[in-house]
Amino acid sequence: MTALGIGLIGTGYMGKCHALAWNAVAAVFGDVERPRLAVLAEATPELAERKARELGFARATGDWRSLIADPAVDVVSITTPNAFHPEMAIAALEAGKHVWCEKPMATRLPDADRMLAAARASGKVAALGYNYIQNPMVRLIARLLGEGRVGDVNHVRIEMDEDFMADPEQLFYWKSEASSGHGALDDFGVHALSLIWTLFGGVRRVCGHMAKPYADRPLKDGGRRAVETYDIATTLIELDNGASGVIALNRSAWGRKGRIFIQIFGSKGTIVYDQERMNEVQLYTVDGAKETQGFRTILTSPHHPPYDKFVPAPGHGLGFNDLKIVECRELMRRIAGEAAHLIAFEEGLRIERVVDAIARSAHSGVWVDVPAVGDRQAA
Amino acid sequence: MTALGIGLIGTGYMGKCHALAWNAVAAVFGDVERPRLAVLAEATPELAERKARELGFARATGDWRSLIADPAVDVVSITTPNAFHPEMAIAALEAGKHVWCEKPMATRLPDADRMLAAARASGKVAALGYNYIQNPMVRLIARLLGEGRVGDVNHVRIEMDEDFMADPEQLFYWKSEASSGHGALDDFGVHALSLIWTLFGGVRRVCGHMAKPYADRPLKDGGRRAVETYDIATTLIELDNGASGVIALNRSAWGRKGRIFIQIFGSKGTIVYDQERMNEVQLYTVDGAKETQGFRTILTSPHHPPYDKFVPAPGHGLGFNDLKIVECRELMRRIAGEAAHLIAFEEGLRIERVVDAIARSAHSGVWVDVPAVGDRQAA
Amino acid sequence: MTALGIGLIGTGYMGKCHALAWNAVAAVFGDVERPRLAVLAEATPELAERKARELGFARATGDWRSLIADPAVDVVSITTPNAFHPEMAIAALEAGKHVWCEKPMATRLPDADRMLAAARASGKVAALGYNYIQNPMVRLIARLLGEGRVGDVNHVRIEMDEDFMADPEQLFYWKSEASSGHGALDDFGVHALSLIWTLFGGVRRVCGHMAKPYADRPLKDGGRRAVETYDIATTLIELDNGASGVIALNRSAWGRKGRIFIQIFGSKGTIVYDQERMNEVQLYTVDGAKETQGFRTILTSPHHPPYDKFVPAPGHGLGFNDLKIVECRELMRRIAGEAAHLIAFEEGLRIERVVDAIARSAHSGVWVDVPAVGDRQAA
Amino acid sequence: MTALGIGLIGTGYMGKCHALAWNAVAAVFGDVERPRLAVLAEATPELAERKARELGFARATGDWRSLIADPAVDVVSITTPNAFHPEMAIAALEAGKHVWCEKPMATRLPDADRMLAAARASGKVAALGYNYIQNPMVRLIARLLGEGRVGDVNHVRIEMDEDFMADPEQLFYWKSEASSGHGALDDFGVHALSLIWTLFGGVRRVCGHMAKPYADRPLKDGGRRAVETYDIATTLIELDNGASGVIALNRSAWGRKGRIFIQIFGSKGTIVYDQERMNEVQLYTVDGAKETQGFRTILTSPHHPPYDKFVPAPGHGLGFNDLKIVECRELMRRIAGEAAHLIAFEEGLRIERVVDAIARSAHSGVWVDVPAVGDRQAA
Repeated sequence: MTALGIGLIGTGYMGKCHALAWNAVAAVFGDVERPRLAVLAEATPELAERKARELGFARATGDWRSLIADPAVDVVSITTPNAFHPEMAIAALEAGKHVWCEKPMATRLPDADRMLAAARASGKVAALGYNYIQNPMVRLIARLLGEGRVGDVNHVRIEMDEDFMADPEQLFYWKSEASSGHGALDDFGVHALSLIWTLFGGVRRVCGHMAKPYADRPLKDGGRRAVETYDIATTLIELDNGASGVIALNRSAWGRKGRIFIQIFGSKGTIVYDQERMNEVQLYTVDGAKETQGFRTILTSPHHPPYDKFVPAPGHGLGFNDLKIVECRELMRRIAGEAAHLIAFEEGLRIERVVDAIARSAHSGVWVDVPAVGDRQAA
Repeated sequence: MTALGIGLIGTGYMGKCHALAWNAVAAVFGDVERPRLAVLAEATPELAERKARELGFARATGDWRSLIADPAVDVVSITTPNAFHPEMAIAALEAGKHVWCEKPMATRLPDADRMLAAARASGKVAALGYNYIQNPMVRLIARLLGEGRVGDVNHVRIEMDEDFMADPEQLFYWKSEASSGHGALDDFGVHALSLIWTLFGGVRRVCGHMAKPYADRPLKDGGRRAVETYDIATTLIELDNGASGVIALNRSAWGRKGRIFIQIFGSKGTIVYDQERMNEVQLYTVDGAKETQGFRTILTSPHHPPYDKFVPAPGHGLGFNDLKIVECRELMRRIAGEAAHLIAFEEGLRIERVVDAIARSAHSGVWVDVPAVGDRQAA
Repeated sequence: MTALGIGLIGTGYMGKCHALAWNAVAAVFGDVERPRLAVLAEATPELAERKARELGFARATGDWRSLIADPAVDVVSITTPNAFHPEMAIAALEAGKHVWCEKPMATRLPDADRMLAAARASGKVAALGYNYIQNPMVRLIARLLGEGRVGDVNHVRIEMDEDFMADPEQLFYWKSEASSGHGALDDFGVHALSLIWTLFGGVRRVCGHMAKPYADRPLKDGGRRAVETYDIATTLIELDNGASGVIALNRSAWGRKGRIFIQIFGSKGTIVYDQERMNEVQLYTVDGAKETQGFRTILTSPHHPPYDKFVPAPGHGLGFNDLKIVECRELMRRIAGEAAHLIAFEEGLRIERVVDAIARSAHSGVWVDVPAVGDRQAA
Repeated sequence: MTALGIGLIGTGYMGKCHALAWNAVAAVFGDVERPRLAVLAEATPELAERKARELGFARATGDWRSLIADPAVDVVSITTPNAFHPEMAIAALEAGKHVWCEKPMATRLPDADRMLAAARASGKVAALGYNYIQNPMVRLIARLLGEGRVGDVNHVRIEMDEDFMADPEQLFYWKSEASSGHGALDDFGVHALSLIWTLFGGVRRVCGHMAKPYADRPLKDGGRRAVETYDIATTLIELDNGASGVIALNRSAWGRKGRIFIQIFGSKGTIVYDQERMNEVQLYTVDGAKETQGFRTILTSPHHPPYDKFVPAPGHGLGFNDLKIVECRELMRRIAGEAAHLIAFEEGLRIERVVDAIARSAHSGVWVDVPAVGDRQAA
């Protein structure tokens, strides 16, 4: 197998994270050909040049279209601001490249529809950067569910909380503008939805609510401007599998830094997970003597693949960036035609449909059915 | 001040709990006259006699009406099944006795209305057994909120979970019959609502959902019977103070034993509390150096009155039964005409109104406004 | 069975705690005759009178010897400062009373020897107030050990930490005087030793170290005085059963309020307990699938007797004072000639011997064997 | 600055970890020249060839001496079994290469002495792989101590526990042979000592104890063989700064996977850290209102450099392998003549001296002074 040629567009938080993954994936897993880091594109040639040196890419360009056109590039990592995703992803797919695009797909649902159409037409792999699902502990949860260790799931709660919008005196910036989207719901709530999709499948209907903790925020030059987005979103849900549930999202939650708290209730047990302690899973089952039943804290270990590829000793811990390396490996497997654990545009669009349904419900005050992908969606 | 004469009706879980409180309250607090444990009523004279001896009551009776009529009785503790509360409480109030009635007020809202009317007419103290609000740590939370330590509260989440209905093969019994009420919502959800009332005041509107984790349950003699109540209830709420929130209740939550998990998000900090660790409060505030901000675990101590009346050393822990002793002291203060921290029939009816609004919303699928107490309520 | 008559000497922290237990024991357990609270003794008749009214005792006296002589008294609760224990306990035993004396037995080992001799001579029950061992969760640990759930115990660590001496600017008071004893070792370390005794049996030899975190402390009227006791004590131990272990005690441990942290390592599992979360036990066993092994948090429940006598629902929590009620019940069982879980003077003296051996080791810098009870002890 | 040429000897657990660090360091930090991965040495040319491809090295060899002689190599990563460290490290230093050698230095103290001598003679950087000290949270602790946030440290406890030797039926292998060293003490206790050195400086004297939880272990072909090493070690210590302390090490601790539990008690507060939750630090200080004092859980964030180089958002978590990347950066700084946070041979030898003193104390049963480095050590 010949080495894949990689093109990277964007070198912010996620661009660096992709680059680290491309650098490490072969060394960690030892079963894929080390990729060629071919071309890096940034806003200016100078920045591109500097970043290419840091991140280990052979060439640099200030023109992302030339990167896409480059025959040395087989896969394009797209890590630019969300508004650029549709144009870049569609261009790359049309040029016959595989695409690894950061989530969410797009800021508007029709663009996401077009992206999926382009992916289907291309026959190429079009994957999204939903890295939380790559945690070995999330895989463990999926496995436990699949094995029926907690019986039939009948209730689910997911909370996602951070505090980057918690300060009411933080200056007004684009995240409070309506053009950026709904707010907590699409800004980071899609991660929660990616976990629901991965662990339970589809969402049948939703009843949402969105709230603004702060009516306005200060402007740099004095005065205040009304906030247009919703830093808090809560939703009642019914899953396709019949379970009821709740989603609660808050990007103004003081003290929460990367909390994604999941509680899964089944007929034989309960599973609890907290992303802030991403190397642990809590499991309660009704097995054994009653006087010793309790939630057990499972520490990540080589029994939870692919943790073993990172460290052979248990309990030593993976970090956030490691999840991207796992995702990268899954992408390479998919490209090689193997089974892979990945959210592609196909599934990504379902997530966007749920986002849209929640937002519509929050505005109308009634329950909204989530349309199937392929269906035309009611305005 | 002359000692209060106590009458106790019922000696189940809560009856014993009341008796323990009446026995201990003077010794613990040292500032109230030791009550006279005058009369105990049970279903039969024999049982009453035996329990009176155990629990320290001077006399026993198989007729609760004679207890209420007894001039030696100043206060009546009502701890019988919920369906008996209205008749007994109204009779006691009409006989000029103070009433300490276990929650909830009644199984039907009109009965609760009549109870409040009787209380208002009597001029006597009519208190409800919402003991969770008596935890010194809940008082600490109220104090922190009052002092603005977390700023303006803008979002609240309350979960209450136990697992006494979690086993799908548990035999069908009265808690699955529609006549017992809605299910988790009124069976124990009222405790969550008592905490919302205590900490934040009224609920403005609600959007509820109720679910049955198990469609049917086995009958003792074979076959299965359809479950008529909802073991799971979830609700989106808006509080009178403008905050948004979520209530999630589950009496089929394997592994949860007495969890009441509260998350309070404000403009300057966050408070978290878990009833299963009732001697702790988590507090996050934005004070001080950024590198040392974090949720602090506050252990109960003499700085959290009235813990100091139980133990002079910090961190030694109160138990569930101690909360009833605190409640008993508050009741005695109220009877003595002093300020007291208590949910009386007045506030109890507000809680019942919220229960009713959530149930109606769950059936209609739309948001429902919570009617004010005193208003006529729309069917 | 006729009711036991109770005499209480002392009404401080522990006196109140005894009184609460005597008031509650019959109501909680329902299988013992309600004791008669006969006489209370305090330093002055006035104080005794007031406390008797609060705590429910029939009579009061300013003379403890008259309490002991009173034929209405069958059991004497001794809760005075430690220096008074020998005289009072011996007098009570010689008067044919049962004795319930707070720990430790005495401030000097020869006095403890005399107390045991008096107890043996009297044929009466002579119990010590080691209440931590009465926690249902400690009983659970004992049961798990007895059933071999963690195999053979080979290593034990016990830490006991509080912070009442942590402030270096706290005024010098009697706890820093040599006449009060060694310091952390006997002041509260005896609790740790009571748990070792209860769970593992005897200690074979010890190697101790004691330290003064602060050389001196301020005097009320200015100046500073050298500290004579050791707020920190650490000890390497070998148990009679062959296990190795560590004891670490610190009464200057900022932030620790009532921590007694126990780690028990066996050939098949591990048990962890923290008194600050006294309603929980952590258990790790090697049973079952490797990918789901982990420490489980067992919440106290009716499966852990006698928790069920306090609350019929799991996870609601006992408090510190409840442990004394359990101890009181055990004392009553012992008096009635039944098997009871209790540390009597017999076992108490073994604990004092370990204290003494650790102190001698700390001074000599070498390992010291713990003498058996009955043996003459080497100076 | 020209890129450093890297030679890697060994590709086991730690070899892979070094390789990942060399691949990632420039991308993560962005302020060092990307190193050239020049030569990889393994036991056979074939294995070396395969691993070089996986790990990104340009050339491969089956002869480590040729790697050391290679002019393209500036730094040699030594990750072979401990017994090889002295020969390889000394050879590399004598060849004028910088050395990055995994801990511990050697299996025998005289070899460690020779290694330090070679390092001093060479003038090159000779660093050890004590990666736990590189955790940003450990740096936070060091910073808090330096700023006096917990006042003067007067007591320290460090526990290190894993369970890789916990199964008594695990086959006898080299870790139970005396030739492998003392057991838990040097096998992994050196990590605990590296943290003591980093946070508090030198150890003045020690009193150790070592224990065998299992007398023998099964042989593959039947029968059992006596265990020669000590899986458990406990030590009382006095630090150079006057603080007392305890070290407890157990590699037979069921359920512990990578626990390094540190408790630091000072005159103004307490710090607690657990390596199994390596992204958290617990801090208690006496600041502020008494009713809200408590241990705060600090989650790792960009306020804890160099976490910010890995992830710009707080609370997302580093993993074990990330610590090696930090260590790699420190090594590069040291090579560039800048201040660096690193345990070089100089400090490493002090750690080995403490190990030796503890072992001697455990055998003699008395306290042993730790000799200063440079001193001749008493047999």
